[in-house]
Amino acid sequence: MLKILVSNDDGIDAQGIYVLAKALAKIGEVTVVAPHKEQSAVGHAITMQLPLRVSKYYKNNEFFGYAVTGTPADCVKMGIKNIMKQYPDIVVSGINHGSNTAINIIYSGTVSAAREAAITDIPAIAISVTSHEVTDFEYAGKVAVKLCKLVARKGLKKGTLLNVNVPDIPAEQIKGMKITKQGKSKWDDMYEERTDPYGRNYYWLKGGLIEADDDMIMDQKAVKSNYVSITPIHFDLTDNESYDEMCSWNLTKELDGKEI
Amino acid sequence: MLKILVSNDDGIDAQGIYVLAKALAKIGEVTVVAPHKEQSAVGHAITMQLPLRVSKYYKNNEFFGYAVTGTPADCVKMGIKNIMKQYPDIVVSGINHGSNTAINIIYSGTVSAAREAAITDIPAIAISVTSHEVTDFEYAGKVAVKLCKLVARKGLKKGTLLNVNVPDIPAEQIKGMKITKQGKSKWDDMYEERTDPYGRNYYWLKGGLIEADDDMIMDQKAVKSNYVSITPIHFDLTDNESYDEMCSWNLTKELDGKEI
Repeated sequence: MLKILVSNDDGIDAQGIYVLAKALAKIGEVTVVAPHKEQSAVGHAITMQLPLRVSKYYKNNEFFGYAVTGTPADCVKMGIKNIMKQYPDIVVSGINHGSNTAINIIYSGTVSAAREAAITDIPAIAISVTSHEVTDFEYAGKVAVKLCKLVARKGLKKGTLLNVNVPDIPAEQIKGMKITKQGKSKWDDMYEERTDPYGRNYYWLKGGLIEADDDMIMDQKAVKSNYVSITPIHFDLTDNESYDEMCSWNLTKELDGKEI
Repeated sequence: MLKILVSNDDGIDAQGIYVLAKALAKIGEVTVVAPHKEQSAVGHAITMQLPLRVSKYYKNNEFFGYAVTGTPADCVKMGIKNIMKQYPDIVVSGINHGSNTAINIIYSGTVSAAREAAITDIPAIAISVTSHEVTDFEYAGKVAVKLCKLVARKGLKKGTLLNVNVPDIPAEQIKGMKITKQGKSKWDDMYEERTDPYGRNYYWLKGGLIEADDDMIMDQKAVKSNYVSITPIHFDLTDNESYDEMCSWNLTKELDGKEI
């Protein structure tokens, strides 16, 4: 049996993680460790200045998993180190309510939970459905099962995780699967200025994703075209092209040697 | 005059951002927009579920900048969209109290502030000093000035930022500057279990960086060897090597076509 750690960023009471855990229980021994409340857009935050609490969470009068008063990355660390007390074979994060394509990968708690596993050299999958008002996570649950089995058999390069996005359409309309790259689409966002009941200003982030991906190898375009998008991502942020370029700058001369 | 937006993750009252803003004021028009309290290790979190407040912050009876009740990435968004109301020429984040090398880049609020600028195609620099008990940020401030002038002249590839780490040693012991890559050193961390005055358990993250970089092209090794480390990083997380490998997997066959 595969030992599977499941987490998310929508919180332990979200429908997506419930469907995911139930689906994965068919192929492995599942341990759920997830935030006690929603943690969307927390990125790869971890909690260092405050302690964490852990409590058991029950769903339909059955023990479901461990709720942690922290971020998705905290949950994965805590799950591995203090709850499972051994390395799982795979970590699966999701099923997220809303897509995690293109620039959203940077802000995503769902992806960061999986990335925390990849940092620890554990294969990991983040899985999301493209709509916030998802009614049926069953198909995405089946995708997660298939990919877990595939990863268990094929392996992943150390430090790599799969970021999976499933279109929120009826299963029979899904055209297939595509291996993709992180898209270039970004948010056009702004802060709406409002006034509270006491006359003080406050600001609320709003905006929309500007579709900038028209190539099917990009996650955002593939998902929009009704494919399940699977993007291998890693946490080596070095821009090798700029590295090569900057090495030719003769920096010591540019900066007058060590005397700056 | 360069228009410079300055932020950090240690909070607007930290010594590092004060020295940085003062140093950069010599070469540009500086706008400071920083978190109202410490936001270390928040990664690239942004605030969507709550509104933000903005207040003016004074230091030594002089207006210093704008304090925002959010994350470093929030501050940069807010600074560009609602405070400066125009794109700055460059965004500089820091000077961070503590190094941001190797895996720390992933968790760093300092780096994320600069990365938020890079996402918006604005050149950006994150700068850190390697010790948490820094007494003198002056040298790092000079490095920031030099690099701002260099970036203003040379430019950076769109989407690229510079992650700079300065050893916390007397200036005369600095050996020079090195263009580097993100190191492989990771944390060996665990949660210390404690009991509160009411008999309930809580958990606190602790650990240390395991030095795994012995090549001078790696940020962690360069800084340890008394060089200023300058790493060009970006936010394209695609693992191209795994992408090529997985494209050869014949996924449709592996996953039995669309019928999963």
